[in-house]
Amino acid sequence: MKELFQAVTIKEAREIVLNHVSFPRDGEKVSLLSALDRCLLYDMVAVDDVPGFDRSTMDGFAVRAKDTFGASEGLPAYLEVAGEVLMGVAPEGELKPGQAWRIATGGMLPAGADAVVMVEHTEELDEKTIGVTRPVAPGENVVRRGEDVQAGSVVLPAGHRLRPQDLGMLAAAGVVAVEVRRPLRVGIISTGDEVVSPEEKPAPGQVRDINSYTLYGAVASCGGEPRLYGIVRDDFHQLQERLARALSENDMVLLSGGSSVGTRDVAARVIDSLGRPGILFHGVSLKPGKPSVGAVVNGKPVFGLPGHPASALVVFELLVAPLIRSYSYPRESFWEFPLRARITRNLRSAAGREDFVRVKLRLQDGELHAEPVLGKSGLITTMVRADGLARIPAGKEGVEAGEWVEVKLF
Amino acid sequence: MKELFQAVTIKEAREIVLNHVSFPRDGEKVSLLSALDRCLLYDMVAVDDVPGFDRSTMDGFAVRAKDTFGASEGLPAYLEVAGEVLMGVAPEGELKPGQAWRIATGGMLPAGADAVVMVEHTEELDEKTIGVTRPVAPGENVVRRGEDVQAGSVVLPAGHRLRPQDLGMLAAAGVVAVEVRRPLRVGIISTGDEVVSPEEKPAPGQVRDINSYTLYGAVASCGGEPRLYGIVRDDFHQLQERLARALSENDMVLLSGGSSVGTRDVAARVIDSLGRPGILFHGVSLKPGKPSVGAVVNGKPVFGLPGHPASALVVFELLVAPLIRSYSYPRESFWEFPLRARITRNLRSAAGREDFVRVKLRLQDGELHAEPVLGKSGLITTMVRADGLARIPAGKEGVEAGEWVEVKLF
Repeated sequence: MKELFQAVTIKEAREIVLNHVSFPRDGEKVSLLSALDRCLLYDMVAVDDVPGFDRSTMDGFAVRAKDTFGASEGLPAYLEVAGEVLMGVAPEGELKPGQAWRIATGGMLPAGADAVVMVEHTEELDEKTIGVTRPVAPGENVVRRGEDVQAGSVVLPAGHRLRPQDLGMLAAAGVVAVEVRRPLRVGIISTGDEVVSPEEKPAPGQVRDINSYTLYGAVASCGGEPRLYGIVRDDFHQLQERLARALSENDMVLLSGGSSVGTRDVAARVIDSLGRPGILFHGVSLKPGKPSVGAVVNGKPVFGLPGHPASALVVFELLVAPLIRSYSYPRESFWEFPLRARITRNLRSAAGREDFVRVKLRLQDGELHAEPVLGKSGLITTMVRADGLARIPAGKEGVEAGEWVEVKLF
Repeated sequence: MKELFQAVTIKEAREIVLNHVSFPRDGEKVSLLSALDRCLLYDMVAVDDVPGFDRSTMDGFAVRAKDTFGASEGLPAYLEVAGEVLMGVAPEGELKPGQAWRIATGGMLPAGADAVVMVEHTEELDEKTIGVTRPVAPGENVVRRGEDVQAGSVVLPAGHRLRPQDLGMLAAAGVVAVEVRRPLRVGIISTGDEVVSPEEKPAPGQVRDINSYTLYGAVASCGGEPRLYGIVRDDFHQLQERLARALSENDMVLLSGGSSVGTRDVAARVIDSLGRPGILFHGVSLKPGKPSVGAVVNGKPVFGLPGHPASALVVFELLVAPLIRSYSYPRESFWEFPLRARITRNLRSAAGREDFVRVKLRLQDGELHAEPVLGKSGLITTMVRADGLARIPAGKEGVEAGEWVEVKLF
């Protein structure tokens, strides 16, 4: 296979993975209050009109609009105050021509009324009479029945990720429990003979496991359900046993570490031993993060991420995060890199490769500037000091100081 | 007080609240895996150097850099292969002049070595000899001891909100449990005689409670701990009892609804009855959201948000969200409105008032365009259809189609 032997672009990597992966189709029912950031399993259809009646948006008087036509400060339209709308109950009776009913914001228009005059545009002459000093059009200061939501319409589509206002929308539609996609369960395995748990004091030659914790947080921040499977030595059988278990218990597995050639080969052989189609690409044309491996085993994606923490997180953002968030990748790069900032230094890049530069952002003379955070991709501090990632597209051989670049915030 | 009788700007509202509020100073200890998005209670200081030893960043050979000076493809520097570094253990012995030791990415440099030659820049002559075809400088392809983190340095400051890479940083520093700020507990009360729970079928004149659910989600998405206190009728004593309870059980209370004049007055009197200083401002110069109330009662903020769902959420974003996220407000508006987009229509505004327009975003000819979502602020659908909020500064009387505006994503 072509994919085995040459680096693929990020776009190709995404297509290859999507072509082979099959995500879980089952969901779970959760209460509305637990549904934030979850993705809808089905289209949500409104049962009732919202609001269920014509509703005032102002404090004032319900009227027939045509009774106010031509009214002005100099020549008010005089109306009889014939009723009052109480909040939360349907007004009894009908508003007749020449009448005005007191109404508060949110009140239900009485039959016969088609507009509301703001209290500021009236003058009270006596208990029974007002003068309207400005005309209103039919429907003015009113939310009509079904104007917010029409019964039978799709209010939110399947796959939609619920934001706070979407919870409000569902509450308005009378939905108090909702079927959502199950969060993807993501197994995380660190590899390397030199890696020890953060609880341990590293002996000379050993380092603490950074990637398990970074990836745990990254999976959780995408709405996935991370599970740690510890640290595995560079040993075919141990890795095979651990990966097989992680695959059986999760929807996706992330391997990290093993940037050395020998370790990479072991990981690749282990992945291929566990199911079809196995390794799909070995190397991606991006920096940092080139030595990344993509595989699908029996429908479940397995990503081999670089051992260097900054590289691992960049590859995670580009190839893994969108899958966990939405089971797919965004169609337009804007949704991933929505900010524009001026880069503050010349940076070289190789044509045909996408480069991602850790940057600190600052506002200067009303413009956003992106200062590259220098340092090797093996350093976790470069990610800690950065506010986001700037993207240098594959078509360019670099950027010059002052050029605009696309940026995503962490 | 001035604040009672005239609308304040957003900036003034923020200053007034911060001047009177006192946030909890206690924290809680959580495991590193539960610390995502939590804010550090104290500065975190590194105990050890990271890495704890000079570490190779490449597969290749550890060498003395000066033994490679002048090497080229035509005239390689010949070195004796005298050892091999095993991963995870300190190499025994010392690299002598003229020697090279095999080393993999992440391996510890032997004493005497100061650089690594990539395997790609060597030729293997026999089992005991390599030719180096390109010189390396001292420190090349090496991360030096303490280069990532120096023992004794502050790796993350107090108040910092932990991102995935920050968890990795703490793991590297050997921190597996961390003291974080307690999330703010936020009580939410809806008011209005016409409001019913989403479980109920509204009778004519009634509407389901949207704001409790929107605000619940909004508080949670900021890292706060929301609690619902139900729906209260427009009744002084009932509201007083409920607000007193919510205040005693939370760090902040949000009242919503009650946009009508009468209800607003009841809410204001209730707030003032519960403690000092009470109401601080009544009305903010922004649209939508003008009829907002800000108060502090015995150090705890109480916000009276408009009943219109879109207005309530805009005011939440501007006045409440930053407090929950970071106990403060950001210094530069860029951090709140980081995107730039071209507005697609002329919009009028009043000078002296900040306007916030719900917008849908799309990419066109490589530029981001913000299409205003039209509709009354009483409609929840306008928030559901929008991707974000665009800001029209107080100094302007409107924007013309094609002008750049600042945008924040939802």
